[in-house]
Amino acid sequence: MEWANELFSERARSLKRSEIRELLKLTARPGIISFAGGLPHPDTINQDIMLKLTGHVVSEHDATALQYGPTEGRPELLTQLIKLHKNLDGLDVSEENIIVTSAAQQAIALTAKIFLDAGDAVICGRPTYLGFLQAVRSYRGEFIGFPQSPVDGLEVEAIEQHLKQHGRGNVKYIYEVPDFQNPAGVTMSLEKRKRLIELAREYEIVIVEDSPYRQLRYSGVEKPSMLSLDTEGDTVLTLFTFSKIFAPGLRLGWVTGPKPVIDKLVLVKQPADLCTSPFSQLLAAHYIEDGYLDQQIPFIIEFYRPKQQAMLEACERELGGIPGVSWTKPDGGMFLWLSLPEGVDSTELFNRTLERNVAFVVGGAFDCYGERNNSGRLNFSYPNIEQIHEGIKILAECVKEMIGAKVGAG
Amino acid sequence: MEWANELFSERARSLKRSEIRELLKLTARPGIISFAGGLPHPDTINQDIMLKLTGHVVSEHDATALQYGPTEGRPELLTQLIKLHKNLDGLDVSEENIIVTSAAQQAIALTAKIFLDAGDAVICGRPTYLGFLQAVRSYRGEFIGFPQSPVDGLEVEAIEQHLKQHGRGNVKYIYEVPDFQNPAGVTMSLEKRKRLIELAREYEIVIVEDSPYRQLRYSGVEKPSMLSLDTEGDTVLTLFTFSKIFAPGLRLGWVTGPKPVIDKLVLVKQPADLCTSPFSQLLAAHYIEDGYLDQQIPFIIEFYRPKQQAMLEACERELGGIPGVSWTKPDGGMFLWLSLPEGVDSTELFNRTLERNVAFVVGGAFDCYGERNNSGRLNFSYPNIEQIHEGIKILAECVKEMIGAKVGAG
Repeated sequence: MEWANELFSERARSLKRSEIRELLKLTARPGIISFAGGLPHPDTINQDIMLKLTGHVVSEHDATALQYGPTEGRPELLTQLIKLHKNLDGLDVSEENIIVTSAAQQAIALTAKIFLDAGDAVICGRPTYLGFLQAVRSYRGEFIGFPQSPVDGLEVEAIEQHLKQHGRGNVKYIYEVPDFQNPAGVTMSLEKRKRLIELAREYEIVIVEDSPYRQLRYSGVEKPSMLSLDTEGDTVLTLFTFSKIFAPGLRLGWVTGPKPVIDKLVLVKQPADLCTSPFSQLLAAHYIEDGYLDQQIPFIIEFYRPKQQAMLEACERELGGIPGVSWTKPDGGMFLWLSLPEGVDSTELFNRTLERNVAFVVGGAFDCYGERNNSGRLNFSYPNIEQIHEGIKILAECVKEMIGAKVGAG
Repeated sequence: MEWANELFSERARSLKRSEIRELLKLTARPGIISFAGGLPHPDTINQDIMLKLTGHVVSEHDATALQYGPTEGRPELLTQLIKLHKNLDGLDVSEENIIVTSAAQQAIALTAKIFLDAGDAVICGRPTYLGFLQAVRSYRGEFIGFPQSPVDGLEVEAIEQHLKQHGRGNVKYIYEVPDFQNPAGVTMSLEKRKRLIELAREYEIVIVEDSPYRQLRYSGVEKPSMLSLDTEGDTVLTLFTFSKIFAPGLRLGWVTGPKPVIDKLVLVKQPADLCTSPFSQLLAAHYIEDGYLDQQIPFIIEFYRPKQQAMLEACERELGGIPGVSWTKPDGGMFLWLSLPEGVDSTELFNRTLERNVAFVVGGAFDCYGERNNSGRLNFSYPNIEQIHEGIKILAECVKEMIGAKVGAG
């Protein structure tokens, strides 16, 4: 049989291998200084804790720890998550407001599945999280992208103008990572958060708040989560993950939000994978209950803070004063965003830095329209401090070369 | 905000809470004899092995065991799966023919996603696996159902007639569990397997062979897998799971098949959940490599065989000779299928048996058209032997009451 393309669904035919992920493979070669990844540093994953927890869960629980479990989640974990919401944000949520997922990426995909028919749209920032773009595309959804301020995030006024002019139209939800956004590292101001919720209410749109980094703040003052600002409890759906505060390898996260949405998520999760690993869920329940989460978060923050500072210092030193070059100053998370002069193509920059063993991700990958490639995402959680200084120096040299060549040619 | 149904996608609006799953909750009450579940027996899940493996994986591997991993699967597991295919079926497959999934249910869902646009159809048996029906419905796919012989499975001749008359039409693939089918327990003959592959080739359709029970044979002679009969290696895609041979709680399985299909599965898995737990994958890799799989399979077979025999004996004794009542005689797996006289409704039977603390699943749940409710699925892997004898006795009494009432009323 010839693998006739016609057998595949339209959505499958339209999906292509991500160039970015192919590029990322290049950046895994030995000796490279990589600002390209999005992985937690291995030293933030505590194997001793894991060894204790696995022993505990296998010996203290009966075989149901290794059996199928409820689609909604194991009761032991739900209980801990309810307590966590209370402790972190003073929120009162109940079991019916939560569904456990196979990490935040599954939550992003299931959210797209319950809201989007082909041609429906999502409002998002430019840039935004790549995994969100891929998930929406896999359901043939569309994007309406809005600029972001490097200081206080998504330009909510521009969204307001759009909604005033066009109404809700085919928009089903607004997606944003309001704390230390992936990829730009920016955090939305309190005022913008409040206004966005008002707008969502007025136009009856849902807000999907993706919140993987919120607990990793290295400087500045915490902003209330969108979830906690949704006082009616009917507008904001928030996606959480254990990937950055425990271990990505468990593939574990959860969604908290309005019951009618959680109910639909349960209905689409059931045929998607029946349930998330009850074993992972019990490990996480004990991770919270036995105090390991409270112990690890300060450790992880102290581990990443010097890296964040090193990258900000290196950028200031190496890139400061180059006309048209700027970067965000994140207070947490894992990334900062580099903006280059108009016409300086980051794919060419990538080729130049890679030749000198430095990697990052080109900006166009994170743009919902595939534009604005004069930018790039720099990760600081993975490289060490020496690599950060050395890598930013090389990056800056390549940027200067390109600008010089452009000026020279112009 | 009123949770306006209009925000949800068409597929989400069309999904309803499964009545069956609600019924299953009733059957979990204490004191009940349940033939309703589909769970492996807890005694087949070896916690000592699990304790050894978790300790081993956490201490012997570096933190990448708990990190993100490749969408395709961890190399350590892929290596073991390639060996397993060689040992079990003498098959030579390579890494590019395999994708690791979050158990078989995810594989069923991703398969539907790559092949089905709304209105596309899948050929399946009547009855067929409930999780398959739900996954296809969640993509708004349709079904073309064909009868099954209780002796040798899917009526391939009827499929041939259909294809001759209508051509391929909107059919994208054929789904079947050829070994000890869930729910009917029947196994397809070698002749039918070969003929089905020929037909699939002729009409350029894919065969999706779901194979969760194949290694659990208690009697009779093994039939070659559809995968091994696909000598060209371009027609059959086979779904495997560790749920019945290791532990369902790991949520781990894999798909083996033609590279072009595996490539598409990788593309849709990436936005669905990035990757399956590398930790679960390493546990499974060591489970195979260290000989635990070879040790556990004979144990599981010997554990289930007396239960299978007890149920067959009890059916013969209690139901034998009732006009219009028959049941399948599975050689393996976890289920047998009860057929009742025309007009005897299994939902009413369920209500009667439940009153006497015996549960099973009504047959209509497994029918792609929601018909044929004069039937039911009986699980023998979970109840103990005493419960099997007692439960079938009660079931038979209820059947006789209903037939008697029907005759009396007629």
